Amino acid sequence: MKFKIKKLQLETGGKFIAIINKADAERLGVRALERVKISAGKNEIIAILDIASKLVKEGEIALCEEAYKELGVKTGEIANVFPVSKPKSVEYIRKRLHGAYLSYEEIREIVRDTVEKNLSEIELAAFLTALYIRKVSMEEAEHLTRAMIEVGKTLEFEKKLVVDKHSIGGIPGDKTSIVAVPIIAAAGLTIPKTSSRAITSPAGTADRMECLACVEFSAEEIVRIVNKVGACLVWGGALELAPADDIFIQIEFPLGIDPMLFPSILAKKRSVGAEYVVIDIPTGRGAKIKTMEEALDLASDFSELGRRLGMNIACAITYGEQPLGRCIGPILEAREALLAVQNNAPEDVIDKACSIAGLLFKEVGNGDKTLALRIIKSGKAEKKLREIIDAQGGNPKIKPEDLSPGAQKLDVVAERSGKVLWIDNRAIAALAKAAGAPRHKGAGILLYKKTGDRVRKGEKLFTIFAEKSSKLTAAQKLLEEETPFTIAKGYGTEMLLKSLRREREFILER
Amino acid sequence: MKFKIKKLQLETGGKFIAIINKADAERLGVRALERVKISAGKNEIIAILDIASKLVKEGEIALCEEAYKELGVKTGEIANVFPVSKPKSVEYIRKRLHGAYLSYEEIREIVRDTVEKNLSEIELAAFLTALYIRKVSMEEAEHLTRAMIEVGKTLEFEKKLVVDKHSIGGIPGDKTSIVAVPIIAAAGLTIPKTSSRAITSPAGTADRMECLACVEFSAEEIVRIVNKVGACLVWGGALELAPADDIFIQIEFPLGIDPMLFPSILAKKRSVGAEYVVIDIPTGRGAKIKTMEEALDLASDFSELGRRLGMNIACAITYGEQPLGRCIGPILEAREALLAVQNNAPEDVIDKACSIAGLLFKEVGNGDKTLALRIIKSGKAEKKLREIIDAQGGNPKIKPEDLSPGAQKLDVVAERSGKVLWIDNRAIAALAKAAGAPRHKGAGILLYKKTGDRVRKGEKLFTIFAEKSSKLTAAQKLLEEETPFTIAKGYGTEMLLKSLRREREFILER
Repeated sequence: MKFKIKKLQLETGGKFIAIINKADAERLGVRALERVKISAGKNEIIAILDIASKLVKEGEIALCEEAYKELGVKTGEIANVFPVSKPKSVEYIRKRLHGAYLSYEEIREIVRDTVEKNLSEIELAAFLTALYIRKVSMEEAEHLTRAMIEVGKTLEFEKKLVVDKHSIGGIPGDKTSIVAVPIIAAAGLTIPKTSSRAITSPAGTADRMECLACVEFSAEEIVRIVNKVGACLVWGGALELAPADDIFIQIEFPLGIDPMLFPSILAKKRSVGAEYVVIDIPTGRGAKIKTMEEALDLASDFSELGRRLGMNIACAITYGEQPLGRCIGPILEAREALLAVQNNAPEDVIDKACSIAGLLFKEVGNGDKTLALRIIKSGKAEKKLREIIDAQGGNPKIKPEDLSPGAQKLDVVAERSGKVLWIDNRAIAALAKAAGAPRHKGAGILLYKKTGDRVRKGEKLFTIFAEKSSKLTAAQKLLEEETPFTIAKGYGTEMLLKSLRREREFILER
Repeated sequence: MKFKIKKLQLETGGKFIAIINKADAERLGVRALERVKISAGKNEIIAILDIASKLVKEGEIALCEEAYKELGVKTGEIANVFPVSKPKSVEYIRKRLHGAYLSYEEIREIVRDTVEKNLSEIELAAFLTALYIRKVSMEEAEHLTRAMIEVGKTLEFEKKLVVDKHSIGGIPGDKTSIVAVPIIAAAGLTIPKTSSRAITSPAGTADRMECLACVEFSAEEIVRIVNKVGACLVWGGALELAPADDIFIQIEFPLGIDPMLFPSILAKKRSVGAEYVVIDIPTGRGAKIKTMEEALDLASDFSELGRRLGMNIACAITYGEQPLGRCIGPILEAREALLAVQNNAPEDVIDKACSIAGLLFKEVGNGDKTLALRIIKSGKAEKKLREIIDAQGGNPKIKPEDLSPGAQKLDVVAERSGKVLWIDNRAIAALAKAAGAPRHKGAGILLYKKTGDRVRKGEKLFTIFAEKSSKLTAAQKLLEEETPFTIAKGYGTEMLLKSLRREREFILER
């Protein structure tokens, strides 16, 4: 059937949506959410159909911005529209719903149709829910990873020994990448580190790094940067490395499920050519992974999946019961990272970065943690970080004191004397977010006390920084509901720590 | 935050969608698919947010048609917008994903939020997928049914003995309701029969009945009709009886799953006050339910759920291996139903209607199948059907010959002599749909032979009717791929019947 094209004031975030009149839908024999092929000129697309009773006239087809652009048409042009059956991948999704495992070819088809926008949100939600409930087998995880790599870009660098690191996240203030990457690159390894922005946290590595340099580059630019200085610290979001994952996340996030954890991470790493990868698994109360047993399970699955993909995976189970270092929030964390490569930061920040770098050195048979520490002390790590900053268009001469947090601040003091038994990661992250992080780069928290420290009543525990007073007020208000610090006489002397019940929170930062 | 309202050329089918600019979304601290409360004047709504980078300017909020209408605003008016947290029901959906059964209060909340459009397609798809994979317990089915009734309208009639019948569907040509309802009403019982239109079949009862009278009425009009003549045969789609179900179906259909079968059916029946219900379960090869064992399981679940809800359920397991009667398609079926109440239709049509009516008579302790047959033979069933037609604004004097199928026709003849071993329900339905049914009411199929009949080569098997020649051509083309009749020397003499493998089809007609 022929339709006159009309442009719709609607962006869908990538999906192709077309709307026709109810009467035309009946003529065409299609229902809402079914698929139509739309061809105009030399181009054609598959779009998901919506049906309007008044707003689109008979004989018209309204296209969302994305479909309009892809089709390369003008309003008023004529398009040929006909119903198409569901893609094969819908059948495979149904198969998975019924309990069958899928073959590589079937999974690749689903991943390809995901990226090509041929699957609806309903179909994707059903697929991910089924994977979550029925569990992803190791073989399926391998298929998923390979398919996500295949249906995406890959990067190649001049030097062949490519390594990478990744944290499964969840720890406020974790600026390890910005410290570890220059150490690793200074040792002569190639580390093209791509990171995400914060999803549920007050800062992602891309948000932190953005305080020191640009982080948004094309794939070609990244290759140039890495070939030049051996490393990068960039945002991976627009690179189309394993792009299916970015779409899956959109669906997983509102559901609070993450069945694709392993494939997502390893597909992104494999897409940049990494052969040796350290996965950081912060563990403990207040972290994503609560117990050593859980962490060991996770590590063994990562290693096995890596083995199947021809990658060498080392897992680092790290202490995750409190924020890392003393700074939370983009600018404060960038400052602390810069201090760390100058060997002038809290011990935990330096120790964690050197441990991760050391594990990678061991993997490639070239040193250990001691080497990492030596690289910091020699100034080579700082030099390399400044090279990276320079290559990414930042100011290579930046000093820690150039990085100032927001001017609005609030000191929080201890209500009693005693020992800090516990710092609540979730509460600290929530306060930093209430103060404006990550959008307001100067918003955040500076901690003066860490777990195990003694405090006197009235002594400062932390300062909340904000760029806007309204945000500081919001953080102050939230403070009334939260208990970021638990102070008591000592361990196991006052037994009731808190009488609140809180739902376990879902943290989606891969 | 304050926004200027703009109307969007978009109907969403009920959901409230609002779109703001990316910069505003960051200011407001919200992401796509999160919820915002929008208030203007005295009204407020919760909408799901979409984010645009160009098409909506900063300071503007674009509302879909439905949200705009519900809010009762004009373009350019000012709305107050602020983020709201996810509804509680999302937490319950997650709980179900994790395997926990839900309480009545939790399920009611999900059902209420479904009807009030507070849940996204992603959340609903995850919920229904979880119910499908994890299975609905009997207790949960009871909760779901009660909740669907509570969150919807109910009808009340003057006469108290309200009965009903329902078929789980799947058999082409099944016009039983139009024959059984007048029999039942003629016996003095009250039967407010609501039906659906076809979803995947060539005709639903509402499509058939529409050839005889109007079928779209308000709840008040239906009460008036039923109080007057003791019965109705109307479309139930717009009555808001258990309206959650209509939304669930939108999600289930593209996924080919139906976890809500029992609650859906019984909620609709209980909402019209039915105390005695016969459920027809057509069984056999080519039906939805293939074996007697499956049918018995289904029947026992229906009875148990009915018992919990204080309803008396009788199940009728009926022969479902071929179309019912000789007519398929709205007009042809309406004609055959009219002939049936005149005791002038194929035996299977009359037998099935009388069996169903007889089971209901037995349930209420007032006769059996013999009574049903007597009611037909006495002319009382025909008189009652004409009263219903009259009350629903049709022509009460309509004659069978007034109901003519489409003028385009194609005779299909036997390619060999032998015995009809098998008529393929799916193929017959597909041919009728290709010919234009249910939208073209005159499209359909008239069968001259049924299973077990002897045919000679060249003898007519059936005629395909269409209103348009293009549709007849489409049906003719489909005929090349289909094998609606299987003819052989006799049972078990030629062993290979068909060498095709076909995917099992999903039929969603409740």
